[in-house]
Amino acid sequence: MKYPRGVRAPNSNYQANKQVQYGQRGMTLEKDLDRTNQFYLDSKKAVIHKKPTPVQIVNVDYPSRNKAKITEAYFKVPSTSDYNGIYKGRYIDFEAKETRNKTRFPFINIHAHQVEHMRQCHLSGGIVFLIIKFTVHDEVFLYPFEHFVKHWDHFLNNGRKSITYEDIKNESIILPMKYNPRYDYLAAVDEFYIEMEQ
Amino acid sequence: MKYPRGVRAPNSNYQANKQVQYGQRGMTLEKDLDRTNQFYLDSKKAVIHKKPTPVQIVNVDYPSRNKAKITEAYFKVPSTSDYNGIYKGRYIDFEAKETRNKTRFPFINIHAHQVEHMRQCHLSGGIVFLIIKFTVHDEVFLYPFEHFVKHWDHFLNNGRKSITYEDIKNESIILPMKYNPRYDYLAAVDEFYIEMEQ
Repeated sequence: MKYPRGVRAPNSNYQANKQVQYGQRGMTLEKDLDRTNQFYLDSKKAVIHKKPTPVQIVNVDYPSRNKAKITEAYFKVPSTSDYNGIYKGRYIDFEAKETRNKTRFPFINIHAHQVEHMRQCHLSGGIVFLIIKFTVHDEVFLYPFEHFVKHWDHFLNNGRKSITYEDIKNESIILPMKYNPRYDYLAAVDEFYIEMEQ
Repeated sequence: MKYPRGVRAPNSNYQANKQVQYGQRGMTLEKDLDRTNQFYLDSKKAVIHKKPTPVQIVNVDYPSRNKAKITEAYFKVPSTSDYNGIYKGRYIDFEAKETRNKTRFPFINIHAHQVEHMRQCHLSGGIVFLIIKFTVHDEVFLYPFEHFVKHWDHFLNNGRKSITYEDIKNESIILPMKYNPRYDYLAAVDEFYIEMEQ
């Protein structure tokens, strides 16, 4: 199978370089969103942060008085989405995911706990969405939770285990890549949520 | 110096049992708030979570195919407060702190980054406060950011390095301990914020 230039084949180099691989999962989109959020913070537009990776700490050493070194810890399954904060007085909550799949977004990319968390935030009046990057197409979408959850609930009732690229494209707002902010997702929030309410 | 029964002297057992000590810092209040937040979540009253402890991961081993073991990591200074979420459609943001001091809350307990984060959330229209436990008095207060920040800004201009217990008591809403929810801080939020706005 051939991949376009600049696109990494699934699991290439996985055996050769496992440790680096783990840390780099989804790093490009994550870095671009970090940069976007920093821009929003600096320009006082919004206060939105990525939550730290949840880790179960088992053992800590104190090689010197002021330095604590964690020597044994494990990744935990997250119980919430990765990003939240406040924009125009509104609660914002979203999850960011990258897929190398060309034709669909498989639900294996997301934890059930995260979806139920987003459902509760949505029912509480928050603005909730996913940011999905199709790396092969180099396209990034803001996908409102309202649309996502229809497919998810269908999946829970033994429906498809994925959402097609076409459905996502039709139900999303595309986020063009810019210099700064990288992905101006709050412009899409204005378009989909704030303006609709006015 | 004598301490009341059940109250631990500052830094007692510190040398003897360093590793346990670190993990238990502020654990009582944290556990009570976890339980309170779970109650709010189960009763669909609010969606509020503690953020994971921020950790800088340096090395990960893969002893078996599916198990990632973190073997070197360090605690990072948090850049936000520990708790946030949504209640009645409003963005909620707070920090929880315990002190064994009897007469004041020393600012050394809180990072400047956290205060600036809370300031930005407050300016964006969020409901922002601290939950402060005086362990010696066994009293827990919801301390609105509006009041806290006056003392903090005075401190930044070479003022006192702490807030007195009396000031906190006068400017806070006390949170009585109950069975469930442990500390019903959203009742205090209703009282201080929501009802004032109506």
